[in-house]
Amino acid sequence: MTFGVLAFDGAEELDFIGPWEMLRVWSKYAGGPEPCLIVAEHPRPVACAKGLSVNPHVTFEDCPQLDWLLIPGGEGTRREVDNVALTGFVAKQAAGAQGVMSVCTGSFVLHAAGLLSGRRATTHWGSLGRLRELGDVTVVEERFVRDGHVWTAAGVSAGIDLMLAFIADQAGEETAGKVQFYAEYYPLHRRYGDAADGPEAPAYLRGGSDPS
Amino acid sequence: MTFGVLAFDGAEELDFIGPWEMLRVWSKYAGGPEPCLIVAEHPRPVACAKGLSVNPHVTFEDCPQLDWLLIPGGEGTRREVDNVALTGFVAKQAAGAQGVMSVCTGSFVLHAAGLLSGRRATTHWGSLGRLRELGDVTVVEERFVRDGHVWTAAGVSAGIDLMLAFIADQAGEETAGKVQFYAEYYPLHRRYGDAADGPEAPAYLRGGSDPS
Repeated sequence: MTFGVLAFDGAEELDFIGPWEMLRVWSKYAGGPEPCLIVAEHPRPVACAKGLSVNPHVTFEDCPQLDWLLIPGGEGTRREVDNVALTGFVAKQAAGAQGVMSVCTGSFVLHAAGLLSGRRATTHWGSLGRLRELGDVTVVEERFVRDGHVWTAAGVSAGIDLMLAFIADQAGEETAGKVQFYAEYYPLHRRYGDAADGPEAPAYLRGGSDPS
Repeated sequence: MTFGVLAFDGAEELDFIGPWEMLRVWSKYAGGPEPCLIVAEHPRPVACAKGLSVNPHVTFEDCPQLDWLLIPGGEGTRREVDNVALTGFVAKQAAGAQGVMSVCTGSFVLHAAGLLSGRRATTHWGSLGRLRELGDVTVVEERFVRDGHVWTAAGVSAGIDLMLAFIADQAGEETAGKVQFYAEYYPLHRRYGDAADGPEAPAYLRGGSDPS
């Protein structure tokens, strides 16, 4: 399985590096996909949304056909939805892939590539309204959503939960458990302050699914 | 506040980019530290443990005096504990800083720099025994541990929890809550398989503090 992770200027760091970590632990210790490639339009360093500089492994031109492609969010998506080189790459890859996934506002890139119409999907809480306004997406306020071969996650850190669920789907619960244990992904159930108590919070937070 | 994040070949991606995300959201939306710098020995790209390539902002030579320095773990720490250029940089910075922190096996770098003797600390579950064998560290099997101005986290993803707690300590619970909400860090309480049920699991997982 060949797995691609899209990068572009203004991509949010944890949106793609959280899932990347899980994916690569799966590769290295539990029979997961090889190769896993950071893919960008140009070969130059990618300037992420919060200041990290990352070097892509391949460009759109060099990239082999992928089996799966993950698209992060971040402020750069506002620009990239109008970049036909990028949306064209996503659409072309998706046509030959097993599936696609997005984290955070990466869902808008999937939509711009024609891959989200008529589907159930989610995004960062701050962009749920914008996703609804597109008119042809059934917005679901879950931590992540699977609709056939299209997986979408809520904001930033939710991509880690998406990737572990994907690993469990593809390779079983025990394999996902090995990855989770290696990465020691057993977060504290701590909510700081009351930022998540307001009306902006997505339904999965308001729904009391979090016992803390 | 000037915040440094150390990078070296074989540093584990999520160990430093998880905390980086929280730190930078704090900078950008809630009055957190500026500048935040990825610091490496050399200016060339850093080859992370799981294949990501990251460009440092400054080298040891260019780096200003830091107020805080975070040290990730990863297989590269096995080499870096013997790299006197690196341990010397850490020790020198620590002497003028407010404090230091490590994630995962980054604790061994802190120890090699003379900063962990006589302290309570933790590391990745797979290295707890090695940390005990050093003989002068009180190993605590918590998600993260604070001993004065030295903060250490358990494996890989635990650095995110450490950084949110640090933000709460420095800037209050409401500020940490804003960062947590922006990054949508409300992970699912899902444990896959039984990997974390064995005797290798750290006490904080065995202790039933996780309700799932």
